[in-house]
Amino acid sequence: MKSLAELFEHTLQDIYYAENAITKALPKVAKAAKNSDLKKAAEEHLSETKQQISTLKKVFSSIGKEAKGEKCDAIEGLIKEADGLMEEASGTALDAGLLAACQAVEHYEIARYGSLREWAKVLGHDEAHKLLSEILDQEKAANNKLTNIAVAGINKR
Amino acid sequence: MKSLAELFEHTLQDIYYAENAITKALPKVAKAAKNSDLKKAAEEHLSETKQQISTLKKVFSSIGKEAKGEKCDAIEGLIKEADGLMEEASGTALDAGLLAACQAVEHYEIARYGSLREWAKVLGHDEAHKLLSEILDQEKAANNKLTNIAVAGINKR
Repeated sequence: MKSLAELFEHTLQDIYYAENAITKALPKVAKAAKNSDLKKAAEEHLSETKQQISTLKKVFSSIGKEAKGEKCDAIEGLIKEADGLMEEASGTALDAGLLAACQAVEHYEIARYGSLREWAKVLGHDEAHKLLSEILDQEKAANNKLTNIAVAGINKR
Repeated sequence: MKSLAELFEHTLQDIYYAENAITKALPKVAKAAKNSDLKKAAEEHLSETKQQISTLKKVFSSIGKEAKGEKCDAIEGLIKEADGLMEEASGTALDAGLLAACQAVEHYEIARYGSLREWAKVLGHDEAHKLLSEILDQEKAANNKLTNIAVAGINKR
């Protein structure tokens, strides 16, 4: 892997894998969460994530590539952390910890989409830049929603 | 783990482990990077990270606990991703990819310190809240610096 174009494609495969892994993790979070706002946020973000996977397919298509995932160690680690919490925690620690774990995942995505859309711009992939910017904005909004839930409720119980 | 106090201590151990892991990873990034700005940023952030570890020891002390780390799967995954890049990439892909990997680590830290300082506030740990807010601001500044390097140089080569 030498060029920015190769890195772009590789990282797109990485986030495609990550989004698919997130669709498997979110139902577990929604089930484990006791706080109704967190439960609802996990359910809503699941349907948003499925839409983002469709959008990523359009990004691959816009650069003439086939959509495929490549194992992403970072998301595996982030999800493993959330799984550990679901095994070890209960009560306030479970809800506040799960919410924080979801925010760590959102931040990972914000970092990745921030890089990807910048690279798309440099590479002249205008359609990909537009689509990736849309997803980035959604991830930022999802993270802000989680911050509001944390500050308003979970941490104060 | 049931209470917010237990979650706070657990997550403090998690980020303490992460910061120590980062001090081992950053010299490898500084060595592998070809771009002089990225190399310099990695070296500067190494010394900043060492100071943050000292600050974390003060946070532990302020709540009457001993500083210790607990294995953090998320940082392991993030570092594994950067290691993979150093093995597989060269040229522009290496520099731009390493920079993006550093930003993913910064975002992980921003998420973690954001939760930690909020929990410190709720728990009435004023000294811990102040110290964690200081580190959070440093991590945000470090991430902004990396964004500037990305936009100004690496991605455009």
